[in-house]
Amino acid sequence: MHGIHLISNGRLTEQHMQLVSEQIAQINYIHLREKTKTAKEILEMIDFLLEAGVPAERIIINDRVDVASIKKCCGVQLAYHSIPVADVKRSFPALRIGKSVHSLEEAITAEHNGADFLIYGHIFSSNSKPGLEPRGITALADVTKNVSIPVIAIGGITEQNMNQVQEVGASGVAIMSGVWDAEDPTEAIKCYRQVFDSRKEEQFE
Amino acid sequence: MHGIHLISNGRLTEQHMQLVSEQIAQINYIHLREKTKTAKEILEMIDFLLEAGVPAERIIINDRVDVASIKKCCGVQLAYHSIPVADVKRSFPALRIGKSVHSLEEAITAEHNGADFLIYGHIFSSNSKPGLEPRGITALADVTKNVSIPVIAIGGITEQNMNQVQEVGASGVAIMSGVWDAEDPTEAIKCYRQVFDSRKEEQFE
Repeated sequence: MHGIHLISNGRLTEQHMQLVSEQIAQINYIHLREKTKTAKEILEMIDFLLEAGVPAERIIINDRVDVASIKKCCGVQLAYHSIPVADVKRSFPALRIGKSVHSLEEAITAEHNGADFLIYGHIFSSNSKPGLEPRGITALADVTKNVSIPVIAIGGITEQNMNQVQEVGASGVAIMSGVWDAEDPTEAIKCYRQVFDSRKEEQFE
Repeated sequence: MHGIHLISNGRLTEQHMQLVSEQIAQINYIHLREKTKTAKEILEMIDFLLEAGVPAERIIINDRVDVASIKKCCGVQLAYHSIPVADVKRSFPALRIGKSVHSLEEAITAEHNGADFLIYGHIFSSNSKPGLEPRGITALADVTKNVSIPVIAIGGITEQNMNQVQEVGASGVAIMSGVWDAEDPTEAIKCYRQVFDSRKEEQFE
């Protein structure tokens, strides 16, 4: 589950989905996180992506386990208000389970309950969470050291600070406003990819 | 799926759930239709009912197929905005599928797609749908004649008009405000049961 997770911003348009399908080689996973949309609408978005050539194993659905299961998506991203990890694990063994966590304790519990990966944040201050104190790099390092499943860092990740989260053990980054609010989202995706891979190459040198 | 379906009103309290568990012998199914609640909250409501002695095979969950499946509930009630009937049928064969329909055409399609029962309405004017023209008894008769799965009538069903919907072939009635807005909900449930059964006895005489 390593790499770049692009998270939809709740207002995903056809134009955005077209962009995702064109740039799917640059990102690793697209998360449909459209909280106000109905099950029917999310299914239609998945169909759009599949028809545009996005493989189901690259699509992660926020909260709606039933929708992810029916479309044989890669997995689900569960929040505090979602079905508990252990229940999903037992009843939907084919799905990869991501859990959104905000503390070391939550991270350890989620791993214990069977989560396949974690999204932890927010790391830096971000437009998506204005006014909330970011958790910072040291807390992220503490999480990656204490769990063995992949940790994806979220919150204010830019091309400038991405390598920092990779250095402390994050397996991936979750990007929202960094792409959707960019003047040129296509260029932003390419830039994130390049910076992400540069660190990977460094590790293998 | 015949009988009395009690539908929650989106504001179900612990006191209401206590009432349901005490009166479960009087009703056939309780539908949890709590549209603004999260998956976690609905799961907690189901746990409350199960612990209070309501059997899972009497509980129907609105829209959230995943929640119904995890708790091995009787089934799901699907609306226009839900996952399509055929998808649920294929992926969740253990669940009974109710579909909410508003025309003969929708009823026939839902049966064709594998629905196990229909909720059709609204039949009479009701507090839940103020200002909307009710469909009436003749339209209900048209639906029950043209499908072979059970049709549950919804909308403004009272102790006074319940036998009318049974006479034109409705297998059951769905009640919401008739119980929740009653001065004495326990008495209302008993009264609905008595009137419903009186018609059944008539049929068997």
